[in-house]
Amino acid sequence: MDEELRNALYKAYVGEAKAALRLKVFADVAQQEGYPQMARLFRVIAFSEEIHGARALKVLKNIGTTEENLKESFESESRVAGVAYNDFMKIALERGDKAAELHFSQSRDVEEGHETLYKNALQGVIQDRTSSYYVCKVCGYVAEDALPESCPVCGAPQNQFVSFEGERPG
Amino acid sequence: MDEELRNALYKAYVGEAKAALRLKVFADVAQQEGYPQMARLFRVIAFSEEIHGARALKVLKNIGTTEENLKESFESESRVAGVAYNDFMKIALERGDKAAELHFSQSRDVEEGHETLYKNALQGVIQDRTSSYYVCKVCGYVAEDALPESCPVCGAPQNQFVSFEGERPG
Repeated sequence: MDEELRNALYKAYVGEAKAALRLKVFADVAQQEGYPQMARLFRVIAFSEEIHGARALKVLKNIGTTEENLKESFESESRVAGVAYNDFMKIALERGDKAAELHFSQSRDVEEGHETLYKNALQGVIQDRTSSYYVCKVCGYVAEDALPESCPVCGAPQNQFVSFEGERPG
Repeated sequence: MDEELRNALYKAYVGEAKAALRLKVFADVAQQEGYPQMARLFRVIAFSEEIHGARALKVLKNIGTTEENLKESFESESRVAGVAYNDFMKIALERGDKAAELHFSQSRDVEEGHETLYKNALQGVIQDRTSSYYVCKVCGYVAEDALPESCPVCGAPQNQFVSFEGERPG
């Protein structure tokens, strides 16, 4: 595949990923404003854009096996937490922008946790263990197995967590 | 907010949106390979990345009202369908890449439909009407109110549709 076509597919992947996320934010706003029908529509179109973006990614490159994907995800996490968010934090600190600084520092802390999660999950596959996960809606912190009293990263209360519960073997 | 900080927030938004979508693709692969626990982990971390990306977007710019968001989404759809995908299609056609061509042309057709959906939804708000939606998992086509026999854009059978059903007023 030549570079121009690769660029087109990459642009489609990134454009659709951005659109899907933006539409989910719009859905939350619509829900808060009392338009559940509009919220659903935004979510439906976000889902449609995700299908386009995922398809562009799959045409662009062969997706590896789960083992390869885990390795790629590990590496991406350490890059993001260790490099990008630290640089971003410095910029926000210099500018004295509290909201941006808080976002970057909490995101960095959460990303650091993702690497551990991948490791535990890989061991879970080996041990045939099933984990449950709880995600903080405020900062994205992921707790494994036990729902925290409050978020250890941003302090949000327990009712701000979304549960992803695994079926435990009997 | 100065440009450097705006760039950092924008990079965080785009990076997290890309990561979230990539992780969902990895989740599908893990499911297909028979690793439901890994699939759940990828989905959980994708959700966490979406929270980061959405937060970066909200720090970057004030999100408007639902009416403004609808207008922005309309405009974005017509740009994507009318310009970007047509250009991409030409590139894929010239290179003779069938998979890319099919992806771009079907995506363009689906995006054209989104504009109509936004219009209908807006009328639905006015009329207090509740729509159900059905999304084709292959090409992202969105059907309103009735589940099609097969996808009019890509020909996928009915069992490839995901339902988003609204609660109809009694």
